[in-house]
Amino acid sequence: MTTAKIDNVTVTTQASVYFDGKCVSHGITFADGTKKSVGVILPATLTFNTGAPEIMEGVGGECEYLLTGATEWVKSGAGEKFSVPGNSSFQIRVAAPYHYICHFG
Amino acid sequence: MTTAKIDNVTVTTQASVYFDGKCVSHGITFADGTKKSVGVILPATLTFNTGAPEIMEGVGGECEYLLTGATEWVKSGAGEKFSVPGNSSFQIRVAAPYHYICHFG
Repeated sequence: MTTAKIDNVTVTTQASVYFDGKCVSHGITFADGTKKSVGVILPATLTFNTGAPEIMEGVGGECEYLLTGATEWVKSGAGEKFSVPGNSSFQIRVAAPYHYICHFG
Repeated sequence: MTTAKIDNVTVTTQASVYFDGKCVSHGITFADGTKKSVGVILPATLTFNTGAPEIMEGVGGECEYLLTGATEWVKSGAGEKFSVPGNSSFQIRVAAPYHYICHFG
Protein backbone atom coordinates (compact mmCIF):
# COMPACT_ATOMS: atom_id res chain seq x y z
CA MET A 1 0.00 0.00 0.00
CA THR A 2 1.50 3.29 -1.10
CA THR A 3 1.45 6.37 1.11
CA ALA A 4 0.17 9.04 -1.29
CA LYS A 5 -0.38 11.84 1.22
CA ILE A 6 0.73 12.79 4.72
CA ASP A 7 -1.63 14.91 6.81
CA ASN A 8 -1.06 17.57 9.46
CA VAL A 9 2.58 18.32 8.93
CA THR A 10 4.74 21.39 8.75
CA VAL A 11 6.70 21.56 5.51
CA THR A 12 10.07 23.24 5.20
CA THR A 13 9.77 25.37 2.09
CA GLN A 14 13.42 25.21 1.09
CA ALA A 15 14.37 21.94 -0.57
CA SER A 16 17.50 19.91 0.11
CA VAL A 17 19.36 19.45 -3.17
CA TYR A 18 21.93 16.65 -3.34
CA PHE A 19 24.23 15.54 -6.16
CA ASP A 20 23.49 18.52 -8.40
CA GLY A 21 19.78 17.84 -8.15
CA LYS A 22 19.81 14.09 -8.72
CA CYS A 23 18.09 13.94 -5.33
CA VAL A 24 15.70 16.65 -4.12
CA SER A 25 13.74 16.46 -0.89
CA HIS A 26 11.53 18.60 1.33
CA GLY A 27 11.56 18.18 5.09
CA ILE A 28 8.35 17.63 7.01
CA THR A 29 7.74 17.81 10.75
CA PHE A 30 4.89 16.10 12.57
CA ALA A 31 2.95 17.59 15.50
CA ASP A 32 5.00 15.44 17.91
CA GLY A 33 8.26 16.83 16.49
CA THR A 34 9.13 13.77 14.40
CA LYS A 35 11.00 14.74 11.24
CA LYS A 36 10.85 12.93 7.90
CA SER A 37 11.44 13.96 4.34
CA VAL A 38 9.68 13.43 1.03
CA GLY A 39 11.95 13.29 -1.98
CA VAL A 40 12.73 12.02 -5.41
CA ILE A 41 15.82 10.45 -6.93
CA LEU A 42 16.34 10.98 -10.65
CA PRO A 43 18.14 8.56 -12.96
CA ALA A 44 21.61 8.06 -11.46
CA THR A 45 23.65 5.84 -9.19
CA LEU A 46 24.30 7.64 -5.91
CA THR A 47 25.96 6.89 -2.59
CA PHE A 48 24.35 8.22 0.58
CA ASN A 49 25.85 8.26 4.05
CA THR A 50 23.57 7.88 7.04
CA GLY A 51 23.87 9.46 10.46
CA ALA A 52 20.73 8.15 12.11
CA PRO A 53 19.27 4.89 10.83
CA GLU A 54 16.86 5.45 7.95
CA ILE A 55 13.88 3.66 6.54
CA MET A 56 13.23 4.43 2.89
CA GLU A 57 9.62 3.97 1.84
CA GLY A 58 8.92 3.99 -1.88
CA VAL A 59 5.87 5.95 -3.02
CA GLY A 60 6.44 5.97 -6.78
CA GLY A 61 8.78 4.30 -9.25
CA GLU A 62 11.39 1.84 -8.09
CA CYS A 63 15.06 1.65 -7.18
CA GLU A 64 17.79 -0.84 -6.57
CA TYR A 65 19.94 -0.44 -3.47
CA LEU A 66 23.16 -1.94 -2.18
CA LEU A 67 23.89 -1.71 1.53
CA THR A 68 27.45 -1.49 2.78
CA GLY A 69 28.80 -5.02 3.13
CA ALA A 70 26.13 -6.51 0.89
CA THR A 71 27.01 -8.08 -2.43
CA GLU A 72 23.68 -8.01 -4.22
CA TRP A 73 21.57 -5.14 -5.41
CA VAL A 74 17.98 -5.39 -4.18
CA LYS A 75 14.92 -3.96 -5.90
CA SER A 76 12.47 -1.82 -3.94
CA GLY A 77 9.39 -0.15 -5.35
CA ALA A 78 6.32 1.83 -4.45
CA GLY A 79 4.71 0.51 -1.27
CA GLU A 80 7.93 -1.21 -0.19
CA LYS A 81 10.46 -0.19 2.46
CA PHE A 82 14.08 -0.87 3.19
CA SER A 83 16.19 -0.08 6.23
CA VAL A 84 19.65 1.41 6.34
CA PRO A 85 21.71 1.24 9.55
CA GLY A 86 23.01 4.43 11.16
CA ASN A 87 26.57 5.61 10.51
CA SER A 88 26.64 3.57 7.36
CA SER A 89 26.11 4.16 3.67
CA PHE A 90 24.22 2.72 0.77
CA GLN A 91 24.23 2.96 -2.97
CA ILE A 92 21.02 3.48 -4.85
CA ARG A 93 20.45 3.31 -8.58
CA VAL A 94 17.43 4.46 -10.43
CA ALA A 95 16.42 4.33 -14.09
CA ALA A 96 13.30 6.50 -13.74
CA PRO A 97 12.26 8.85 -10.91
CA TYR A 98 11.99 7.04 -7.58
CA HIS A 99 9.78 8.87 -5.08
CA TYR A 100 10.22 8.17 -1.40
CA ILE A 101 9.52 9.05 2.19
CA CYS A 102 12.60 8.93 4.40
CA HIS A 103 11.90 7.98 8.03
CA PHE A 104 14.72 8.64 10.49
CA GLY A 105 15.68 6.92 13.71
CA MET B 1 10.31 38.26 5.09
CA THR B 2 10.92 34.72 3.92
CA THR B 3 8.39 31.95 4.53
CA ALA B 4 10.60 29.17 5.92
CA LYS B 5 7.86 26.79 7.03
CA ILE B 6 4.18 26.16 6.34
CA ASP B 7 2.10 24.59 9.12
CA ASN B 8 -0.87 22.23 9.12
CA VAL B 9 -0.79 21.00 5.56
CA THR B 10 -1.17 17.71 3.78
CA VAL B 11 1.82 16.93 1.60
CA THR B 12 1.61 14.86 -1.57
CA THR B 13 4.46 12.40 -1.27
CA GLN B 14 5.12 12.02 -4.99
CA ALA B 15 7.02 14.95 -6.48
CA SER B 16 6.26 16.67 -9.75
CA VAL B 17 9.37 16.51 -11.92
CA TYR B 18 9.61 18.97 -14.83
CA PHE B 19 12.28 19.44 -17.48
CA ASP B 20 14.23 16.32 -16.56
CA GLY B 21 14.43 17.44 -12.97
CA LYS B 22 15.42 21.07 -13.51
CA CYS B 23 12.26 21.82 -11.55
CA VAL B 24 11.00 19.57 -8.75
CA SER B 25 8.02 20.38 -6.54
CA HIS B 26 5.80 18.79 -3.91
CA GLY B 27 2.14 19.66 -3.66
CA ILE B 28 0.61 20.80 -0.38
CA THR B 29 -3.05 21.15 0.55
CA PHE B 30 -4.37 23.39 3.31
CA ALA B 31 -7.23 22.52 5.66
CA ASP B 32 -9.59 24.68 3.57
CA GLY B 33 -8.65 22.78 0.41
CA THR B 34 -6.33 25.43 -1.01
CA LYS B 35 -3.51 23.88 -3.01
CA LYS B 36 0.00 25.27 -3.36
CA SER B 37 3.36 23.74 -4.13
CA VAL B 38 6.86 24.06 -2.75
CA GLY B 39 9.62 23.58 -5.25
CA VAL B 40 13.08 24.32 -6.48
CA ILE B 41 14.45 25.33 -9.87
CA LEU B 42 18.01 24.28 -10.63
CA PRO B 43 20.41 26.17 -12.91
CA ALA B 44 18.63 26.45 -16.27
CA THR B 45 16.43 28.70 -18.38
CA LEU B 46 12.92 27.26 -18.50
CA THR B 47 9.55 28.22 -19.97
CA PHE B 48 6.42 27.49 -17.92
CA ASN B 49 2.85 27.69 -19.11
CA THR B 50 0.16 28.71 -16.65
CA GLY B 51 -3.42 27.52 -16.44
CA ALA B 52 -4.59 29.35 -13.36
CA PRO B 53 -2.83 32.59 -12.43
CA GLU B 54 0.20 31.98 -10.23
CA ILE B 55 2.10 33.90 -7.63
CA MET B 56 5.67 32.77 -7.22
CA GLU B 57 7.13 33.50 -3.78
CA GLY B 58 10.87 33.11 -3.40
CA VAL B 59 12.09 31.37 -0.25
CA GLY B 60 15.75 30.81 -1.15
CA GLY B 61 18.15 31.88 -3.86
CA GLU B 62 17.02 34.17 -6.65
CA CYS B 63 15.77 34.03 -10.22
CA GLU B 64 15.16 36.26 -13.18
CA TYR B 65 11.85 36.02 -14.98
CA LEU B 66 10.42 37.28 -18.25
CA LEU B 67 6.66 37.44 -18.60
CA THR B 68 5.04 36.96 -22.01
CA GLY B 69 4.95 40.34 -23.75
CA ALA B 70 7.60 41.83 -21.48
CA THR B 71 10.97 42.88 -22.84
CA GLU B 72 13.07 42.96 -19.69
CA TRP B 73 14.13 40.22 -17.34
CA VAL B 74 13.29 41.04 -13.73
CA LYS B 75 15.13 39.76 -10.65
CA SER B 76 13.21 38.17 -7.80
CA GLY B 77 14.73 36.69 -4.68
CA ALA B 78 13.91 35.20 -1.31
CA GLY B 79 11.08 37.07 0.38
CA GLU B 80 9.89 38.54 -2.93
CA LYS B 81 6.91 37.58 -5.08
CA PHE B 82 5.89 37.94 -8.68
CA SER B 83 2.59 37.29 -10.41
CA VAL B 84 1.97 35.43 -13.64
CA PRO B 85 -1.40 35.77 -15.41
CA GLY B 86 -3.47 32.68 -16.16
CA ASN B 87 -3.31 31.02 -19.57
CA SER B 88 0.02 32.63 -20.18
CA SER B 89 3.65 31.67 -19.90
CA PHE B 90 6.87 32.94 -18.47
CA GLN B 91 10.54 32.24 -18.76
CA ILE B 92 12.66 31.86 -15.69
CA ARG B 93 16.42 31.63 -15.46
CA VAL B 94 18.43 30.61 -12.48
CA ALA B 95 22.17 30.41 -11.82
CA ALA B 96 21.87 28.65 -8.44
CA PRO B 97 18.92 26.82 -6.90
CA TYR B 98 15.86 29.04 -6.55
CA HIS B 99 13.40 27.78 -3.94
CA TYR B 100 9.80 28.90 -4.14
CA ILE B 101 6.22 28.54 -3.01
CA CYS B 102 3.74 28.59 -5.89
CA HIS B 103 0.34 30.04 -5.02
CA PHE B 104 -2.45 29.37 -7.50
CA GLY B 105 -5.54 31.33 -8.40
